[in-house]
Amino acid sequence: MRYADVAKAERIRIYDVARVAGVSVATASKALNDTGRMTEATRTRVKQTAAALGFRPNAMARALTKHRSFTVGLLTNDTYGRFTLPVMAGVSEALVDQGVSVFLCGIEDDAALGKVHVDAMLDKQVDGIIATGKRIDRRLPVDLSGLPMPVVYAFTEGPEDAITLVSDDAQGAREAVEWLVQAGRKNIVHVTGPETFVSVGERARAFRAVVGEAGRVLHGPWSEAWGHEAVGRLWSEAGDKPDAVFCGNDQIARGVVDALRERGIVVPDQVSVVGFDNWEIVSAATRPPLTSVDMNLKELGREAGRLILELAEGKPVEPGVRQLPCKLVVRQSCGGVRRSSDQQGGVLEEV
Amino acid sequence: MRYADVAKAERIRIYDVARVAGVSVATASKALNDTGRMTEATRTRVKQTAAALGFRPNAMARALTKHRSFTVGLLTNDTYGRFTLPVMAGVSEALVDQGVSVFLCGIEDDAALGKVHVDAMLDKQVDGIIATGKRIDRRLPVDLSGLPMPVVYAFTEGPEDAITLVSDDAQGAREAVEWLVQAGRKNIVHVTGPETFVSVGERARAFRAVVGEAGRVLHGPWSEAWGHEAVGRLWSEAGDKPDAVFCGNDQIARGVVDALRERGIVVPDQVSVVGFDNWEIVSAATRPPLTSVDMNLKELGREAGRLILELAEGKPVEPGVRQLPCKLVVRQSCGGVRRSSDQQGGVLEEV
Repeated sequence: MRYADVAKAERIRIYDVARVAGVSVATASKALNDTGRMTEATRTRVKQTAAALGFRPNAMARALTKHRSFTVGLLTNDTYGRFTLPVMAGVSEALVDQGVSVFLCGIEDDAALGKVHVDAMLDKQVDGIIATGKRIDRRLPVDLSGLPMPVVYAFTEGPEDAITLVSDDAQGAREAVEWLVQAGRKNIVHVTGPETFVSVGERARAFRAVVGEAGRVLHGPWSEAWGHEAVGRLWSEAGDKPDAVFCGNDQIARGVVDALRERGIVVPDQVSVVGFDNWEIVSAATRPPLTSVDMNLKELGREAGRLILELAEGKPVEPGVRQLPCKLVVRQSCGGVRRSSDQQGGVLEEV
Repeated sequence: MRYADVAKAERIRIYDVARVAGVSVATASKALNDTGRMTEATRTRVKQTAAALGFRPNAMARALTKHRSFTVGLLTNDTYGRFTLPVMAGVSEALVDQGVSVFLCGIEDDAALGKVHVDAMLDKQVDGIIATGKRIDRRLPVDLSGLPMPVVYAFTEGPEDAITLVSDDAQGAREAVEWLVQAGRKNIVHVTGPETFVSVGERARAFRAVVGEAGRVLHGPWSEAWGHEAVGRLWSEAGDKPDAVFCGNDQIARGVVDALRERGIVVPDQVSVVGFDNWEIVSAATRPPLTSVDMNLKELGREAGRLILELAEGKPVEPGVRQLPCKLVVRQSCGGVRRSSDQQGGVLEEV
């Protein structure tokens, strides 16, 4: 290809093709990539338009590395921001030194709104898209396959062949339960969220892998009220009472701690409690403050930022699901002793 | 000016001037607008560079209306997102139908980071910038005056001649206290945050304007623990106990409600409690759920979005501080009766 041709190809953007063909940028992109669903007539019209305008699909990949827009789009359906904010903070941290800015687009669970935002990202030729959400077992209501820029999925489900980052729920749960066992707890109960969440199943399996298959798991809503109710149920039964409760999130754990205090049961002296999420507004305000599993969402965001940069620079990244480790943040609700950073025995510190 | 000149002027961007002159885009912009602080040598160098390149400052304003980028930058130092997320949601809602996307840039309290993000926004020629924060009496650590695009300040302090949107704290506090008076409460105490916050002063003045100048105001940190401590202090004093506590935020209110329950005092039968912020994770989880003043931050964001669009389209907007009304969200902690939407008496509904 001669220089003049390249210059021309790079002047004609996918946006121009879409406009002239009367389709969205996403549709134009899919038509030229032979992906997505559309009538053959539409695909043909887009291809003919591209040819007539002198648009060269191959120029796109080159344009991405040569003419980077230094913007990355972050799509989320987590309007409350509980999970997206730390991810966003990590993404920003990874990108700011590279002069890359982040578009945050809240699409709720609205496919039409998702399409609007994806089209806008295509128009603006973002260097890449990071999709994030509030559940690792749910997809965003938009199809990001076949786009002319790289996509990384972080804390949301991606397609089979995608690059997906999730927290290692099983490892996080295992560390929490092992802590309780090391603290001498013999009768640990798991009070958690609805069975329909994949993360609930993973945490429950990890719990039983440590305490044995007879380990008791109680499911309910993700609320403080459920924590109260679970304590009411467990402590009204005959027989031995639990000496530790591992909770599926911090709100449930706060309900458990409050309910125990109201029964005159001292946490952690009589019963240890551990939460999940390490949402400080809840975990730090609980009396006593909650030990909780932190999913390291900021680090997950940083990693997503690093990967999208590598992809935008044309470097190869292996597809697949990457599980990032959680860490146990120890406060006063769990009892037991913290091993020093030297995990091979050594100094013990009482908490 | 002939057409060719315009075309040439529009091809040379402020970014090119800045690069050639060896200054940031913000500095170049200020130099050409005769604003900002810099040495005369720098200002002269920028102007000479602009002249040499054929850059015409007047072309900028035209470019803004003719060649809109359909992006708006949202700058915030509220990394936790407590206040920024609802503002952002409102801004997005106002802009999405116009095909305008939002860059969210978290600058913490870091002036250097702020400059990086503002420069990026200038590079990308955003149609406007919305500055937002976590306090209405603090400025962001960046100077946004003299930029070649409109700026709106929302829930953060702006310069004298700026367009600034804040919540009407006094009106919100007044409505809350008037509710308590109408509910028959005679001994209302205000437990609130540090005196250094302007909003704390406004709310306290509004409180005293309703209950009288002798109305008691207790200052402390913005925490649940402070709510507990305040109840401990008030209920250990001799004499009549309060029959209502109006709190400066929901965390304090939750601490007050919990401390009262632990003393066997029934909310709202014996003591009414009202919070501020209507942060649902706190207000809805309190037992009983908190009545709270909602600052309508999403509507504030919507209004900021509407204003920035008008400005980007070249419409005039009167500068000054606009106070947007708060609303009282009535749940179970306050007692009293809700007047129907017809504020002139009429149907009463018990809560």
